[in-house]
Amino acid sequence: AQTELVTPTAAAILAELARFQRPPMKVQAVGIGFGDKQFPWPNGLRVWLGEPFHPAQPEADQVVLLECNLDDVTGEALGYTMERLFAAGALDVWFTPIFMKKNRPATMLSVLAPAGEAETLGLILLRETPTLGLRITPPMHRWKTGRRVREVQTVWGAVRVKEKLLGDEVLAAAPEYEDCARIAREHGVPLAQVYTAVQSAATEEGGGYQP
Amino acid sequence: AQTELVTPTAAAILAELARFQRPPMKVQAVGIGFGDKQFPWPNGLRVWLGEPFHPAQPEADQVVLLECNLDDVTGEALGYTMERLFAAGALDVWFTPIFMKKNRPATMLSVLAPAGEAETLGLILLRETPTLGLRITPPMHRWKTGRRVREVQTVWGAVRVKEKLLGDEVLAAAPEYEDCARIAREHGVPLAQVYTAVQSAATEEGGGYQP
Amino acid sequence: AQTELVTPTAAAILAELARFQRPPMKVQAVGIGFGDKQFPWPNGLRVWLGEPFHPAQPEADQVVLLECNLDDVTGEALGYTMERLFAAGALDVWFTPIFMKKNRPATMLSVLAPAGEAETLGLILLRETPTLGLRITPPMHRWKTGRRVREVQTVWGAVRVKEKLLGDEVLAAAPEYEDCARIAREHGVPLAQVYTAVQSAATEEGGGYQP
Amino acid sequence: AQTELVTPTAAAILAELARFQRPPMKVQAVGIGFGDKQFPWPNGLRVWLGEPFHPAQPEADQVVLLECNLDDVTGEALGYTMERLFAAGALDVWFTPIFMKKNRPATMLSVLAPAGEAETLGLILLRETPTLGLRITPPMHRWKTGRRVREVQTVWGAVRVKEKLLGDEVLAAAPEYEDCARIAREHGVPLAQVYTAVQSAATEEGGGYQP
Amino acid sequence: AQTELVTPTAAAILAELARFQRPPMKVQAVGIGFGDKQFPWPNGLRVWLGEPFHPAQPEADQVVLLECNLDDVTGEALGYTMERLFAAGALDVWFTPIFMKKNRPATMLSVLAPAGEAETLGLILLRETPTLGLRITPPMHRWKTGRRVREVQTVWGAVRVKEKLLGDEVLAAAPEYEDCARIAREHGVPLAQVYTAVQSAATEEGGGYQP
Amino acid sequence: AQTELVTPTAAAILAELARFQRPPMKVQAVGIGFGDKQFPWPNGLRVWLGEPFHPAQPEADQVVLLECNLDDVTGEALGYTMERLFAAGALDVWFTPIFMKKNRPATMLSVLAPAGEAETLGLILLRETPTLGLRITPPMHRWKTGRRVREVQTVWGAVRVKEKLLGDEVLAAAPEYEDCARIAREHGVPLAQVYTAVQSAATEEGGGYQP
Repeated sequence: AQTELVTPTAAAILAELARFQRPPMKVQAVGIGFGDKQFPWPNGLRVWLGEPFHPAQPEADQVVLLECNLDDVTGEALGYTMERLFAAGALDVWFTPIFMKKNRPATMLSVLAPAGEAETLGLILLRETPTLGLRITPPMHRWKTGRRVREVQTVWGAVRVKEKLLGDEVLAAAPEYEDCARIAREHGVPLAQVYTAVQSAATEEGGGYQP
Repeated sequence: AQTELVTPTAAAILAELARFQRPPMKVQAVGIGFGDKQFPWPNGLRVWLGEPFHPAQPEADQVVLLECNLDDVTGEALGYTMERLFAAGALDVWFTPIFMKKNRPATMLSVLAPAGEAETLGLILLRETPTLGLRITPPMHRWKTGRRVREVQTVWGAVRVKEKLLGDEVLAAAPEYEDCARIAREHGVPLAQVYTAVQSAATEEGGGYQP
Repeated sequence: AQTELVTPTAAAILAELARFQRPPMKVQAVGIGFGDKQFPWPNGLRVWLGEPFHPAQPEADQVVLLECNLDDVTGEALGYTMERLFAAGALDVWFTPIFMKKNRPATMLSVLAPAGEAETLGLILLRETPTLGLRITPPMHRWKTGRRVREVQTVWGAVRVKEKLLGDEVLAAAPEYEDCARIAREHGVPLAQVYTAVQSAATEEGGGYQP
Repeated sequence: AQTELVTPTAAAILAELARFQRPPMKVQAVGIGFGDKQFPWPNGLRVWLGEPFHPAQPEADQVVLLECNLDDVTGEALGYTMERLFAAGALDVWFTPIFMKKNRPATMLSVLAPAGEAETLGLILLRETPTLGLRITPPMHRWKTGRRVREVQTVWGAVRVKEKLLGDEVLAAAPEYEDCARIAREHGVPLAQVYTAVQSAATEEGGGYQP
Repeated sequence: AQTELVTPTAAAILAELARFQRPPMKVQAVGIGFGDKQFPWPNGLRVWLGEPFHPAQPEADQVVLLECNLDDVTGEALGYTMERLFAAGALDVWFTPIFMKKNRPATMLSVLAPAGEAETLGLILLRETPTLGLRITPPMHRWKTGRRVREVQTVWGAVRVKEKLLGDEVLAAAPEYEDCARIAREHGVPLAQVYTAVQSAATEEGGGYQP
Repeated sequence: AQTELVTPTAAAILAELARFQRPPMKVQAVGIGFGDKQFPWPNGLRVWLGEPFHPAQPEADQVVLLECNLDDVTGEALGYTMERLFAAGALDVWFTPIFMKKNRPATMLSVLAPAGEAETLGLILLRETPTLGLRITPPMHRWKTGRRVREVQTVWGAVRVKEKLLGDEVLAAAPEYEDCARIAREHGVPLAQVYTAVQSAATEEGGGYQP
């Protein structure tokens, strides 16, 4: 165990220039070699050859976030407010449990809105909740992956699968919730079994993942 | 059940031009008519006539949000910090439960501050909590409704009610918490009964809601 | 300010025997008297005369709580599981955000079940979630108030109100959520306005609260 | 649409005797028949023939829950306490965010323990946290499914899969987290892709789900 | 690195009989020895000699937990309810954020009560909150450490310190919150500085920790 | 008690000009005087003489916050994602429990990133989680205190302490978690005892706090 594993020169070069992280890349070949010396760990070297991955950038659009803190409203009323906000075009609506002054458990209501819809959605918030004020963030970027819907066949019929795309790469394929839930309800099958079956079918048809 | 309910032309027009949503409006008249045909649902038509509601815009001011994540402080100390921040002019202070690295349940402390008070409040945060860093958002808008306080009479005496105004419209009237809590404590009445009584009195006096 | 406000004897008696709390009671008369001396606080005495309130006990039944901690399931699947559990007779189902080992944000799923339904509901949990284990509390008491539904009239039509009873006493009258939500949706009125109107109507008709 | 869909007698029988729920059962055959009449919904009938499923009961053991509320400890210290409790034999340890008096965000620490280990684990809690008290539930049942580990082959090598068993039935097959995480780290692949690949392999080898 | 570190016999004995955990014990002596061989880790042996620690058991009493889930109450009202419950003798009161049906963020209210006070506190819950039902656990044990209050001197005056005792052992000494908060407020010092000063004083006076 | 405590003129001046708050200041001298009159409270006056504290401003840098809401991922996968994000240079990563549509308990994943690393970290998020979109805030300021590490001696050896600096002022000295945890593990001592000992040593050596 007295062998020099790296020359001082190499060490200096590595310390200056190397980044010990695999960059996003399209792998074209993987080579593996083994040395003769015996160490307490595998004496191997793996080389990945590929080209850096400059993804067709994820798309971006502009959104704003509307938020208010509510300690004077019931959960019942909040459930209803969520329904109204989605109906009026909110991109997303969610609740965060928070704790406010005077020992009050409370809820932060957040609405993600297209920049152009802030006013409409803000008025709904002011009308449907007791809040007297509303924060509106400056417009911010939203990166979005591409999406593409296809169908896969299962023993219970066709199910939609939403593919998530970064440039040409298919990152994942997610079974459509409503399709799976309907099948699970009608056939008395656990939802997880439907998901697994759909995902297996999607993986097979799609050719699976190629490392 | 073989009747045509809408002509193809009307359907095309509706699909292109209609928005199936009631816009914010001042209703001036409501007309209801019923048809002769029998359907499994009420064959009626309701028309709302009114003018679009361009509210005297809610007022806006500029605020910033100061935030830090704390996994090295006790709840005891956080309760005290909230007290200090309110005393120093914070518009709002709240805690959000979060989960941080190394299995640490933690707390995000948020302070809403007038844009001009960020520095003062930030220094309190740096002094009263162990945080080594502090995020400060760019100034953001806060929309605020108008507010007007009036008094209503109850069997236990006068109670303040905070009216919430959008332009001339009174959106809601909220009983003042401290008044109601005091009455509830002194008279041994559940707080909810005081609220209900105050709200009924406010509704009656105010003329109620006119649809 | 050198007056003796209480004699030593009285103080001793009070310290031993009195409980400084209004017991649950049916108030029959309230008397108020004022003294002549001037103090920095009102020199008055209020006496409540009544009989102790031994409420027709709230009813009790036996329930169990089924619980499991889930760090290997999606929120999507949990929403579906809640639906199945209610459909199968759960008295209540809820989610608590928890934090588990290995930096995992997770969810505790709780199901309140009639003691006799624990097995059926437990099997659904074992089938619909990935959990490998399930805690079942020993049967515990559930106290329940009486409930009675009546209708009140509003400008939008009749709305059901659920009265909460402790013995003969009506503690509160809660507008039925689904009725109010339907009206709010159909008439484009904020839900809170419907609630307030219904509650006022219920208070008026019910004769209000009599202190 | 004037056809009688069910005779009054059948309706009465159904109302009395039927339960509109698929019981846990082993399906032996599924028959589907279609009628001639045209309705707005599929005029079909599906019959599941099987025998009721009295599962080889999930196994049960006795556990207790140790709990304390902590508003005077840091998240840092709680992460360490979790580590100690697992090392000392806790079945599970988790944190729940709670809100305590004096505006204190706090944490409930829960420890699931074999009934015989309550004392040892309780002493660790009393030593490692500032709590002055500790709640211990009466022993409660824990239902457990069977578990069986097998290996499946992937392009990155073998991965363990934990099968979940109810009697003879395999309810699910969960890829072993540590195996998948190691592969994801070493090969620079998203963890989700490893999971999907493992699950597909497990489904295929296992013969999949047979409805 | 080819040395045998343990004989097969010793390994077998250890595997069968040893528990690799320090038991609760009173340490009487600690011996450390170092060997001659060179390993990549310290070649040392530490022996702790002591007697097992059978602590004067922590005291135990009987408590019950009252709980209800609330999706129809405001945070404002909950803060007030907490105040009433503490005033009426609750040992502890806390809020847990939960998520209920119909998209409702909600709060679980928990009250820890002496077994004999369940009824009184339960009635307050039924009166002050809109809940129609209330769960009451069977009595459970609460382990409590001993507590002893003493005073320590600081530059700002005397501060109480609460010692936590397990048998004769002082496990910790916690500065009294209200004393420290008062000093921090009056002297304009960060609360954490007061705590640290008090804790240092307590450690010094108490003789510190003796390993 | 009929003495005039303040002249009308002084009261007017105070009401206009005074701010009842101790400003950040370097205290140079504190004077205390007592009056002759007897009041129910100490008749004393404390004067702090010092110069306003314009701290060498806390340093500031620019950061962005990347956030996404996840209802389709397991806690297991999130724990892994946190590990990847820290490894890739995230300044902080945390989870907030939220509640999303369709009764889904969910998690907001937040990543604090140097403004220049947003793209790299964003790509990891898009790859490791199922999210189809990602919010990125505009750059915001982060105020940072100075930090300086020194060592203190304890009975278990040296421990690092991180001093927090505002200009020249040492605000606090926090024991290094990993050092304390290692000692606690190796010596079988409660972590809190190590902390307290280190903090006392740090206070003593540092000369303590000088009011």
